[in-house]
Amino acid sequence: MINMKEYGVPGIPDSLFARGTVPMTKEEIRVLTLSKARLVPGLVVWDIGSGTGSISVEAAIMTPGGTVYAVEKSAEGCRLTGENCLLFGVENVKVVKGEAPGVLATLPSPDRIVIGGSGGRLKSIITAARDRLNTGGRIVINAVTLETLGSSLESLQDGWETEVIQVSVSKARVMGASRLMKAYNPVYIITAWRCGV
Amino acid sequence: MINMKEYGVPGIPDSLFARGTVPMTKEEIRVLTLSKARLVPGLVVWDIGSGTGSISVEAAIMTPGGTVYAVEKSAEGCRLTGENCLLFGVENVKVVKGEAPGVLATLPSPDRIVIGGSGGRLKSIITAARDRLNTGGRIVINAVTLETLGSSLESLQDGWETEVIQVSVSKARVMGASRLMKAYNPVYIITAWRCGV
Amino acid sequence: MINMKEYGVPGIPDSLFARGTVPMTKEEIRVLTLSKARLVPGLVVWDIGSGTGSISVEAAIMTPGGTVYAVEKSAEGCRLTGENCLLFGVENVKVVKGEAPGVLATLPSPDRIVIGGSGGRLKSIITAARDRLNTGGRIVINAVTLETLGSSLESLQDGWETEVIQVSVSKARVMGASRLMKAYNPVYIITAWRCGV
Amino acid sequence: MINMKEYGVPGIPDSLFARGTVPMTKEEIRVLTLSKARLVPGLVVWDIGSGTGSISVEAAIMTPGGTVYAVEKSAEGCRLTGENCLLFGVENVKVVKGEAPGVLATLPSPDRIVIGGSGGRLKSIITAARDRLNTGGRIVINAVTLETLGSSLESLQDGWETEVIQVSVSKARVMGASRLMKAYNPVYIITAWRCGV
Repeated sequence: MINMKEYGVPGIPDSLFARGTVPMTKEEIRVLTLSKARLVPGLVVWDIGSGTGSISVEAAIMTPGGTVYAVEKSAEGCRLTGENCLLFGVENVKVVKGEAPGVLATLPSPDRIVIGGSGGRLKSIITAARDRLNTGGRIVINAVTLETLGSSLESLQDGWETEVIQVSVSKARVMGASRLMKAYNPVYIITAWRCGV
Repeated sequence: MINMKEYGVPGIPDSLFARGTVPMTKEEIRVLTLSKARLVPGLVVWDIGSGTGSISVEAAIMTPGGTVYAVEKSAEGCRLTGENCLLFGVENVKVVKGEAPGVLATLPSPDRIVIGGSGGRLKSIITAARDRLNTGGRIVINAVTLETLGSSLESLQDGWETEVIQVSVSKARVMGASRLMKAYNPVYIITAWRCGV
Repeated sequence: MINMKEYGVPGIPDSLFARGTVPMTKEEIRVLTLSKARLVPGLVVWDIGSGTGSISVEAAIMTPGGTVYAVEKSAEGCRLTGENCLLFGVENVKVVKGEAPGVLATLPSPDRIVIGGSGGRLKSIITAARDRLNTGGRIVINAVTLETLGSSLESLQDGWETEVIQVSVSKARVMGASRLMKAYNPVYIITAWRCGV
Repeated sequence: MINMKEYGVPGIPDSLFARGTVPMTKEEIRVLTLSKARLVPGLVVWDIGSGTGSISVEAAIMTPGGTVYAVEKSAEGCRLTGENCLLFGVENVKVVKGEAPGVLATLPSPDRIVIGGSGGRLKSIITAARDRLNTGGRIVINAVTLETLGSSLESLQDGWETEVIQVSVSKARVMGASRLMKAYNPVYIITAWRCGV
């Protein structure tokens, strides 16, 4: 188990997570996503498309006394999410194997929803998730495709306030005596909350 | 006083701070800077060039039982930092009016150093600050000029490990029925810690 | 009149154009837009929403023997486009005052279409323009809003091939002894041509 | 041989070049580099570190009656540069196998210098090249490492004017029904000319 004393603020390095071949939200995007979600103790959080579980792990650390539901359809993703919870000593994540939006009906209503995937069902997932959000809640979507961006904006028009940012990060990779700046793909982070709340 | 219940994770919106005419680290850069600093309770933090104090305020929230020294040469910056501490109910920030590196000699040795300014003395500031860092400590520098980037890398060569990222954020601004993506200036975030630590 | 001997390749500096208060496509975006348009001598080009006329001027230089129709609804834009043609000694631009898509019906069919505006009628403009494009032609759209991006992609689905790039440019501004990197807003450049051509 | 009728303006797609395993300047960066070089007929151009020769090929097209010296130390790079000249029907490129700065002494003085490499000798290359530049000439450097950026700025201080831009491009890659925006690494483009010219 990793010594978590250093991580009072989100930002566990990517290299500390068990990763397999599942795509993973990069550290800086994860940090900003959790910031936009405004996590506090005791919340119910849905992490839809949890992948390696890196978001679920850090969300769980920031919501002691709450529960993070890591919804993931692939067996490999579920296994990795569980493995990472063990690795970081996190006990308030529940891994939910199943496909959204169907499986969401089985879960308690959330205070926060994080959506990271980009499958074809995204629009129906956002609609279904959105309608379950508790009063005062927030939704944060990470979009790496133009279609996810478009679907997100369409699903969150009437009655929703949104903030949209795009984040481009590059990171130095040492090559001999030089530092090459390697770009990560740009990510849109869409945050939504109900109008008048 | 602002209700801080929502901010268990850094990410207070820029618009909530008292700002005056002093330049301010934008929310997303502030969040990533605090993440890279790996703040935990009880630390001594130096925020050199505190400006409006937005970094000091959020650092203080993440280090209960510790102390943040907000070092700022301008009277307006000192006043704003104090005002923002009051506004967010933060009591563990000490505003230190004075010019780095000279004034640093009067402060207790830090566990974390955040450097945001870009004045001509940056290299001597980094060198002076660096030499006071406690074992296991971290330095995080925000560079918006090429000269600050260059000075930072030169001052942190032998005996230091560094991570360098560049972050570009754009944010949607609603103009009628459209969302125009407004770019913030790109920022380099340089994080350093002693080799072998 | 400006000495044009240096500009065999597009890239006239922004500062050389008469500008007024009309927004202007920045040099680097203009250069990439003209590159994607694959201009050659003799073409008919429509520049819809010509603004200051910077795109029209450089397109005209690259299409000797052809004609650029600068379509612009504002009197100020028409005047600036004309002024810039005089300034750069360009004689193959025809300024067309009027509102797209209506006014497009009066123009000869184009080999290249450049669309820079972002008004509410964008989708109908793209549709109308698209249907007039000569065989082997190309459309290049600059999108600075998420709505223009979405409309462009929707209008260019069936029967069209598209390339979509996003370009973020920052430029050093000297401040004392430092170079601050100033960001321009990111721009999507969408290029389209008929499938199978 | 490829039909070059479409390329009156730089912007040949990357996929049309013979590439091997040598790194290649991406299309959009190439276009902006050639624009900043302000190519016109009849010039002598040095392309130092020609790699695949993509810059040399497009520079040669834009300087009919002039000569492009493609300086490249690797046999594979020289071979590819030659192959691409044949492919695009370009006859005014001279491939110069050898290592800069030494080999530069054998070449006629240039009107334009393009430097793309990032080896350890970069500073001595810039200094040597700079001192040979004809009156009214321009140097354009592509920097992908922080060290190349720093060396370039140091070598072009006294007596030189510089423009520094950073360009980040991402390009849509179709994945099923979605367009994923893939980032290219950011590139600094440094352009220099003698003060007072």
